[in-house]
Amino acid sequence: MPLYVGVDLGGTNIVSGLVDREGRILCRDKRPTRQDLGFEGSLEQMRASIRAVMDGAPEPVRAIGIGSPGPIDPFEGMVLEPENLPAWRNVPLVRLMEEAFGVPAFLDNDANVATFGEQWQGAGKGIRFFLCVTLGTGIGGGVVLDGKLLQGFNGNAAEIGHITIDYNGPRCPCGNRGCLELYASATGIVRRTKERMERERPDTVLWKRLDGLTAKDISEAGNNGDKFARAMYEEAGFLLGVGLVSAVNLYNIEVIALGGGMAQAGEILFEPVRRTVRERGLPGVRDKVRIVPSKLEDDAGLLGAARMAMQRTE
Amino acid sequence: MPLYVGVDLGGTNIVSGLVDREGRILCRDKRPTRQDLGFEGSLEQMRASIRAVMDGAPEPVRAIGIGSPGPIDPFEGMVLEPENLPAWRNVPLVRLMEEAFGVPAFLDNDANVATFGEQWQGAGKGIRFFLCVTLGTGIGGGVVLDGKLLQGFNGNAAEIGHITIDYNGPRCPCGNRGCLELYASATGIVRRTKERMERERPDTVLWKRLDGLTAKDISEAGNNGDKFARAMYEEAGFLLGVGLVSAVNLYNIEVIALGGGMAQAGEILFEPVRRTVRERGLPGVRDKVRIVPSKLEDDAGLLGAARMAMQRTE
Repeated sequence: MPLYVGVDLGGTNIVSGLVDREGRILCRDKRPTRQDLGFEGSLEQMRASIRAVMDGAPEPVRAIGIGSPGPIDPFEGMVLEPENLPAWRNVPLVRLMEEAFGVPAFLDNDANVATFGEQWQGAGKGIRFFLCVTLGTGIGGGVVLDGKLLQGFNGNAAEIGHITIDYNGPRCPCGNRGCLELYASATGIVRRTKERMERERPDTVLWKRLDGLTAKDISEAGNNGDKFARAMYEEAGFLLGVGLVSAVNLYNIEVIALGGGMAQAGEILFEPVRRTVRERGLPGVRDKVRIVPSKLEDDAGLLGAARMAMQRTE
Repeated sequence: MPLYVGVDLGGTNIVSGLVDREGRILCRDKRPTRQDLGFEGSLEQMRASIRAVMDGAPEPVRAIGIGSPGPIDPFEGMVLEPENLPAWRNVPLVRLMEEAFGVPAFLDNDANVATFGEQWQGAGKGIRFFLCVTLGTGIGGGVVLDGKLLQGFNGNAAEIGHITIDYNGPRCPCGNRGCLELYASATGIVRRTKERMERERPDTVLWKRLDGLTAKDISEAGNNGDKFARAMYEEAGFLLGVGLVSAVNLYNIEVIALGGGMAQAGEILFEPVRRTVRERGLPGVRDKVRIVPSKLEDDAGLLGAARMAMQRTE
């Protein structure tokens, strides 16, 4: 049975895995990206990580899949100029890996491969129409339609964070106004919480944590009974739900998995998201869509990358 | 070379065509739906129309494709309960046509097959990522991704009219708030124009046509230099652009075709739509998306239905 290598290239760590056709991870390698060593140094870390998992492979490795921070060009196999990898500029990563290892390589962005991993072995297992949303600094996402990862005409599909929910809303760095990620990302909930504290001077434990306030501080307070903190998650969940209704109405997906730090908040986030989708979705759809936590955490990226390599060489 | 029959079943007319693999329409039949004759009567009209184009076919007909008003179940081949065909309730149309003609039949909704027709032979020819939007009483749409029509998990994809552009906006009959079609459909622009006339008492020729005002009245006035009418199309185009930015950010489509009565307004609509997508789209995408008028008019449905039949029997 042929094997595949999946690589999750991140700004902090590189995680590689040797994966079989059933989605079992036969071995794993994790090492720091070492951006302090410059582009060549971090590229060598990546080669070393792949070599580490390939070396003991009991069967031949057929292909390598890579998830990288965007923007990338998946069709040309290029890493363009990711904010999270500042030393990387227009790197022909697919060609470099193919030359180094003598097998075909494939590249997509980190949100897309994580989605594909969740759809293969995690929260979207067996689901042919599946959206995965990561709530972090921004809101990232990927979508699987009829079992295939959607890339779009130039590799920019599933930009869930940039769904407009209010065309008169605040300006987003992307150029648009009222983008979902201004409201419902970790950064968004922190900003909105601070603004509201300033404006309304609520009674809340968050005053003690105002310096360096995080989304996690807010969810912990909310889950410990702080009404103001809970209301902030209620609002974020509602607004996330509004955005997801647009996504459901365009993609007609059956399952949405929410991941990233903010999703750890649990029911204080999920309950308003689900309620909003039920209230605002289309008849015939709104009662059928399921919204669940993502499952795989750190393995989503490498599994999805391996799965992509597998699907492209079939 | 095998042939295909495409049928566009509408509330007023049934249009059928005999179509070859190159998209040539070898013959066409158009007849009234005759809803006055009840369900059986209009079904017989449909059979007669198909028979008319099949009878003289120089080569065998391999399959029949049908576009019907929604809601339908494309997987079960059922017409459920379309507003535009009130006598039709849970009709197993695919089975009925397969029994009548002895070849496989396929069903999708009218917006989807029209989109597929435009992508095959019209405004989206040669384009693998293509969105088609019809601006009428509501806003309908269909999307082709990587050359395939998106159906979604239960046949409810590409509900472009129900993208939220303002989560605090007016209530839509669908249950949501601030849906695109409340602003930028023919019905929407008429409602908003009347409201604004009431509120602002502008100087406009539209006062003379206030009874039974149509989107066409407004576009004609705008194209004849009426500033108020023009401003209403400017606003509708801007709001349509806002919605299309969300669609572009999710689908990463390359070409959007606008059709339906309102699209006849021309540049007073297209210019603000294009400007908004350029201003609000994501870097790397916003300058590449093209927004064009749809091309095929009445033939879009039958061509797309035939194309669907062809693709499903390959």
